[in-house]
Amino acid sequence: MAGCGRCLIGLNGSAIVRQGAGVPLLIRLIDYTATEFRERELVNVSECQPYLQAPGNTWIHVQGHAEVAILRQLRELFNLHPLAMEDVLNTGQRPKVESYDEQLFVILSLAVINDSTIKTRQISLFLGEHYIVSFCNGYSDPFEPVRKRLRKNGKRFQSRSIDYLFYILIDLVVDEGFPVLERFGEQLEDLEMELLRCPTQDTLAWIHQIKRELLLLRRIFWPQREVIHGLLREDYNLIAEGTKIYLRDCYDHSTQIMELLETYREMSSSMLDVYLSSVSHHTNEIMRILTIIATIFIPLTFIAGVYGMNFGNDSNSPWAMPELHWYYGYPLIWLVMIAVAVLLLIFFKHRGWF
Amino acid sequence: MAGCGRCLIGLNGSAIVRQGAGVPLLIRLIDYTATEFRERELVNVSECQPYLQAPGNTWIHVQGHAEVAILRQLRELFNLHPLAMEDVLNTGQRPKVESYDEQLFVILSLAVINDSTIKTRQISLFLGEHYIVSFCNGYSDPFEPVRKRLRKNGKRFQSRSIDYLFYILIDLVVDEGFPVLERFGEQLEDLEMELLRCPTQDTLAWIHQIKRELLLLRRIFWPQREVIHGLLREDYNLIAEGTKIYLRDCYDHSTQIMELLETYREMSSSMLDVYLSSVSHHTNEIMRILTIIATIFIPLTFIAGVYGMNFGNDSNSPWAMPELHWYYGYPLIWLVMIAVAVLLLIFFKHRGWF
Amino acid sequence: MAGCGRCLIGLNGSAIVRQGAGVPLLIRLIDYTATEFRERELVNVSECQPYLQAPGNTWIHVQGHAEVAILRQLRELFNLHPLAMEDVLNTGQRPKVESYDEQLFVILSLAVINDSTIKTRQISLFLGEHYIVSFCNGYSDPFEPVRKRLRKNGKRFQSRSIDYLFYILIDLVVDEGFPVLERFGEQLEDLEMELLRCPTQDTLAWIHQIKRELLLLRRIFWPQREVIHGLLREDYNLIAEGTKIYLRDCYDHSTQIMELLETYREMSSSMLDVYLSSVSHHTNEIMRILTIIATIFIPLTFIAGVYGMNFGNDSNSPWAMPELHWYYGYPLIWLVMIAVAVLLLIFFKHRGWF
Amino acid sequence: MAGCGRCLIGLNGSAIVRQGAGVPLLIRLIDYTATEFRERELVNVSECQPYLQAPGNTWIHVQGHAEVAILRQLRELFNLHPLAMEDVLNTGQRPKVESYDEQLFVILSLAVINDSTIKTRQISLFLGEHYIVSFCNGYSDPFEPVRKRLRKNGKRFQSRSIDYLFYILIDLVVDEGFPVLERFGEQLEDLEMELLRCPTQDTLAWIHQIKRELLLLRRIFWPQREVIHGLLREDYNLIAEGTKIYLRDCYDHSTQIMELLETYREMSSSMLDVYLSSVSHHTNEIMRILTIIATIFIPLTFIAGVYGMNFGNDSNSPWAMPELHWYYGYPLIWLVMIAVAVLLLIFFKHRGWF
Amino acid sequence: MAGCGRCLIGLNGSAIVRQGAGVPLLIRLIDYTATEFRERELVNVSECQPYLQAPGNTWIHVQGHAEVAILRQLRELFNLHPLAMEDVLNTGQRPKVESYDEQLFVILSLAVINDSTIKTRQISLFLGEHYIVSFCNGYSDPFEPVRKRLRKNGKRFQSRSIDYLFYILIDLVVDEGFPVLERFGEQLEDLEMELLRCPTQDTLAWIHQIKRELLLLRRIFWPQREVIHGLLREDYNLIAEGTKIYLRDCYDHSTQIMELLETYREMSSSMLDVYLSSVSHHTNEIMRILTIIATIFIPLTFIAGVYGMNFGNDSNSPWAMPELHWYYGYPLIWLVMIAVAVLLLIFFKHRGWF
Repeated sequence: MAGCGRCLIGLNGSAIVRQGAGVPLLIRLIDYTATEFRERELVNVSECQPYLQAPGNTWIHVQGHAEVAILRQLRELFNLHPLAMEDVLNTGQRPKVESYDEQLFVILSLAVINDSTIKTRQISLFLGEHYIVSFCNGYSDPFEPVRKRLRKNGKRFQSRSIDYLFYILIDLVVDEGFPVLERFGEQLEDLEMELLRCPTQDTLAWIHQIKRELLLLRRIFWPQREVIHGLLREDYNLIAEGTKIYLRDCYDHSTQIMELLETYREMSSSMLDVYLSSVSHHTNEIMRILTIIATIFIPLTFIAGVYGMNFGNDSNSPWAMPELHWYYGYPLIWLVMIAVAVLLLIFFKHRGWF
Repeated sequence: MAGCGRCLIGLNGSAIVRQGAGVPLLIRLIDYTATEFRERELVNVSECQPYLQAPGNTWIHVQGHAEVAILRQLRELFNLHPLAMEDVLNTGQRPKVESYDEQLFVILSLAVINDSTIKTRQISLFLGEHYIVSFCNGYSDPFEPVRKRLRKNGKRFQSRSIDYLFYILIDLVVDEGFPVLERFGEQLEDLEMELLRCPTQDTLAWIHQIKRELLLLRRIFWPQREVIHGLLREDYNLIAEGTKIYLRDCYDHSTQIMELLETYREMSSSMLDVYLSSVSHHTNEIMRILTIIATIFIPLTFIAGVYGMNFGNDSNSPWAMPELHWYYGYPLIWLVMIAVAVLLLIFFKHRGWF
Repeated sequence: MAGCGRCLIGLNGSAIVRQGAGVPLLIRLIDYTATEFRERELVNVSECQPYLQAPGNTWIHVQGHAEVAILRQLRELFNLHPLAMEDVLNTGQRPKVESYDEQLFVILSLAVINDSTIKTRQISLFLGEHYIVSFCNGYSDPFEPVRKRLRKNGKRFQSRSIDYLFYILIDLVVDEGFPVLERFGEQLEDLEMELLRCPTQDTLAWIHQIKRELLLLRRIFWPQREVIHGLLREDYNLIAEGTKIYLRDCYDHSTQIMELLETYREMSSSMLDVYLSSVSHHTNEIMRILTIIATIFIPLTFIAGVYGMNFGNDSNSPWAMPELHWYYGYPLIWLVMIAVAVLLLIFFKHRGWF
Repeated sequence: MAGCGRCLIGLNGSAIVRQGAGVPLLIRLIDYTATEFRERELVNVSECQPYLQAPGNTWIHVQGHAEVAILRQLRELFNLHPLAMEDVLNTGQRPKVESYDEQLFVILSLAVINDSTIKTRQISLFLGEHYIVSFCNGYSDPFEPVRKRLRKNGKRFQSRSIDYLFYILIDLVVDEGFPVLERFGEQLEDLEMELLRCPTQDTLAWIHQIKRELLLLRRIFWPQREVIHGLLREDYNLIAEGTKIYLRDCYDHSTQIMELLETYREMSSSMLDVYLSSVSHHTNEIMRILTIIATIFIPLTFIAGVYGMNFGNDSNSPWAMPELHWYYGYPLIWLVMIAVAVLLLIFFKHRGWF
Repeated sequence: MAGCGRCLIGLNGSAIVRQGAGVPLLIRLIDYTATEFRERELVNVSECQPYLQAPGNTWIHVQGHAEVAILRQLRELFNLHPLAMEDVLNTGQRPKVESYDEQLFVILSLAVINDSTIKTRQISLFLGEHYIVSFCNGYSDPFEPVRKRLRKNGKRFQSRSIDYLFYILIDLVVDEGFPVLERFGEQLEDLEMELLRCPTQDTLAWIHQIKRELLLLRRIFWPQREVIHGLLREDYNLIAEGTKIYLRDCYDHSTQIMELLETYREMSSSMLDVYLSSVSHHTNEIMRILTIIATIFIPLTFIAGVYGMNFGNDSNSPWAMPELHWYYGYPLIWLVMIAVAVLLLIFFKHRGWF
């Protein structure tokens, strides 16, 4: 990921070739005026030329890793800036907005949950006066729902200018953040349950993993919000005032995502604290039991040891453990030992150890 | 909660239907001029039309989960923006202010303590030139105290324009934050008492819970303050300069709430530190007792063990534990053992262990 | 404290009555022109009317919890804003500056050390064109030193406009922060001494208490600085440019107080770290002693235990502990035990344990 | 490093002499117009004068620690500011941009991985109307790739003004940050593997070292980003609008580097937490085993000790350990001991210790 | 230190008298035009009057704790503002810049290493149209190097206006921060060595002390940078545009100092972490050794204890420890004990304890 963005030097296309060319490229074209609606898949980029010249809005979506040849054709058709083309090719770019003479260029990151891992795809959008060119790497097309809506109630769109479609695409990318975060919300709840029941070393690894994933998501969502903020703040004449109300809504969602993310990050940090203090508390508990048992039996064992000494065996000295020969010696010793144990228990009780 | 704000696509109302329709909807209308005051409950939204056309201010409050049919009627009557309507329906929105052509739209979050849990409700307010339309989900109406005041000394309000009522509503929502935080203040005091007396694992769970709840409250109160700041800063012509002095007071309260919240958050963090160091101190204490008892008796037990060896039993070697046969052997051993114990105690005393 | 600022609704004075009315109210009036100086205590607010109408500057100070009746009279005399009056009554407000048509209204917090606890009092100041009305709750009058200076070298003041007196009052309140912080400085020094000598559980409670008190002081001093910053930044025509130089000096002091406070907060945090690591170090020390003694005697006790076994007693097997019957058996065992102890000591020495 | 930037006083060159003069100095000149391209190595600075006077762009690069004599000649040729010259000589300066009358002066830091240590070199760039003078300390020339590109497809450059070359040089320095950070990324991955498998004291030292190196890198990359931001924001007439699009791309890379750096810093902090809790968990584990074994055997050993007492040996008292003489005494004692052990194991099981 | 800045009330000089009057006061005058240069020590302030009236620049430096009488004379001569005079007298002020009618007043803090403690002195500078008045408390004069340079190559200065000298003085004060920080750099390196070799309780105290000293230095350097930033940003007509380039260089140094300071602060925090985890690791190590030795010998000692029981002594029961009478009983027991020890060692090995 760190490597992206470095081959800026290869302006002449040679750097482009080495990028993953094995993925099949799908080019989908949608063209609509206030009254008409056409949709088709392109084999050759040049096929879209008649649509561009006709009045009406044109949306060309390129799905998969782009081939150099096709990209060059697109570049010539739409007069794309070489730096923007490079950013399209070298996926993994930071979300950003860039204004060129005839176009607005936006890079977004789409976070998708695949099985149980989170993957990101780069969405690149060029907004022109009557067209949008969008790129997305990977196999599955994230904009299929938009196309469905266009087919169903296209009239709503057809009466609006192309920047409304632009907003719809951005909005879809932003809102994809919600299910991703929801998944983290669920995981954090599970984690909390485990934390209170029986925290293990695995729990720690899990917290650690969630923290790192949230850190990586933050690197995507934060600049994404900045991009939408930029679209709102700057006065790009390609975006109408009426569309800005919608973009503001999109910005609100983006802010909501960031806040949720930060909340989850604080929660996971807090859970680490709880985990650590839980382990520390457990150690403390164990120490207490050990200490109680050990400190009670250590003096008793000593007493038993004393009367295991062989002083009294074959000496006639009256000093040599006369207790051994007392009539009540043995029960007396037991009384002494019980007294010691009871006193120690009272002492521990007094200390509040149990 | 994360799911809210996502069904932006359903502009045509189909998304609206699936929202909680089981809750009965109450529509309350208040209409007043400088001299007159009328109040009634509406069954049908269209009933409010005559009040709107008449001169004077009209306040329509919709309590409970809104039905689509009624909302559509309101939308037509007041020409509400579709995005705003969606935000009203999808409760759980982030507090925000949005300015449309004829209206100012404000979303606030009302935090209410119910039994011992904190619940939030979404308050949506539309301010027009001569009317306010307010929405609140849930059963009980938070604006009942305002209505009481209106009935009692309505003349004070009747002489003012509708934006003063707007301020009163916002102020009521903001000030509801104080009792909520007060509750946390009490809990933190109880917590501190417990922390100093006998911290247990439950104390930790409690601190953790308070921290998380404060984190969630922060997500409500912070954007709420921004909303009021926005109302003050931007020049909305629907809000008179004279009303802004009152809103500024409201902003001060909002700031006070945020500061209190931050203070409580820092306090709870500090308590976690105290808890942890308290547990750590306890472990230390236990270790000390254990070590003192163990290290005193371990050498003594060894000595006793030595004289428990069977060397002297049936050997005539003068090297085989002659001490056993000394006249003062046994008391001598006791003296040695007492000396060892005393020396160790002096050593520990010197180390400052007790 | 959280409860303050909530009874905004009671504009008609009913809310005022329930506030502490038991404290005697003192009203002190000072009136001066360039040549004259008069000072008296008022029994009735209306007595100040002649002074207000006469040319010259008038300062009215109200000490103690205000009675409603007197406050209403003041409100009529000076045309005070109802919101401001409420803030005067509901003490515990956040420091703030508010500009009304004819007045500048400032709330400050005075921190006073009483015995060993820190108390805060609310200072409310109204600055008009030729008058100041000040309020302070509590018994003792903080502005007595100012009055003394006025009596002694009043001519210096008499030649200046009323905003200079306004600055003197603010400056006095701000500078009261220094002795309060100085006290914390002394406490932190004592704390550090104790921390290095013999930290106990009480030390922790002390650090914790200082941290909390500094947190509460911060909530006062921070907005106070903002208030003075506001007076400097905004162009209030009641404050002359020449007075602003003095206020800037006052702002510097306020900044100095904030920095000192932050330094103390960081110091107390750092002390918590030192305390914790000190406790941790102590535990470590104790563990080391225990381990050295225990690990040396455990093997020795085992050896002694072995020769305490009764194998050799009445068996004639040559395998049954023949060592017991060796001539040099006993000294040999001692040699073995001493060797084990020495080897262990060397091992610990090598590990750097002592 | 701290010493750099202090000998500001020596304006007259005396301070210059003491700087590392032993390194050979290489001066490379490139001169190009739209049609011509010339490259040569200079022995004497004065040789570049004809190129400067001729139309076209001139780039002079000085590699190695500069000699005072040559620097003086450069200073006279290009009318460099004495403060700038000092910054060139006293390497280790903070990246900055400074605008003089005829020139733009930029200092950058180049981070290079040498073997396994990271070294920084100071790059100083003077941009004039038709020339660039660049300086780099150290032996190897970082701008060699640029020269290669100039030789190969110089025509692309030749048609552009000198500020495009200026951008290319800055871009190269910025992008050198990527491989440096990539290396940290690899190290952090290795570290994580080690952390999960077997963390030792060395792991801690490694984390500590990475944290410190990232801290030092931050001190370079942060002001570097500010420099590029400054070039974009300020309106320097030496940089054309068309070049700013390229510089903006360069700024994006710089931001990406900073974010990566911050992510790595947070990761390494998080790893420290994991390390500490891992050690703490390990201690806990060891404690548990010790406690289980010790607490089971301590009572058993006590029981064994009791029956090792010599009470029953030669006394006829019926109280003197009659158990010793029971027919099933010995197996009974074993039953008691096994029962104690089992009960303790059940107790520990119940506590969830294994 | 906290007490400074409080005696603002004493405008009439009475507060001035109580300040340290015991230190001898040295007044040094330097006067230069483009052609002349004169230097002398003043006994009486009035002696400088002729120099002031003559054309040319005059620099008056007052070294040591100022006497009130002399300060009053200076105040009359230069028309200094009373607030500024107070700041000069009450040393320990926060660095600041203040613009009066005819003067620019700057307070700086000079950090000096004396033996091994860091002391701060207050430098106060008044810049007028043709004069500088500077004050420094303490014995030794920090501006002696400037005077030396003036004497040696005064012509360079003589051709410039007085604000260049003003810059030279500020620059000298700022650059004195480098050797102070360098000292911390060395200490941190020593500390790190000690930390890795053998951390003791003293190491902790050292880290703690460095952290506190850096915290105090920060309180000086941070406002100092703000002062220079203020001189650059505001348009004071006493400072020429040409001099601002030099001040910008001075600002860069100031920024470099702040960054170095922050780096050192982060380093010392990081070292605290390392210390703590090092202690924690050490405890862990000790625990491991203890546990291995104890858990191996505890079962063995128990076995030995069992055969020390007196069951078999004088009983004929076949259940009474028949092992004691077996021919190979004793070696068998040894085999059992060795087996137990080996199994435990294998268990620990498996757990990865050594």
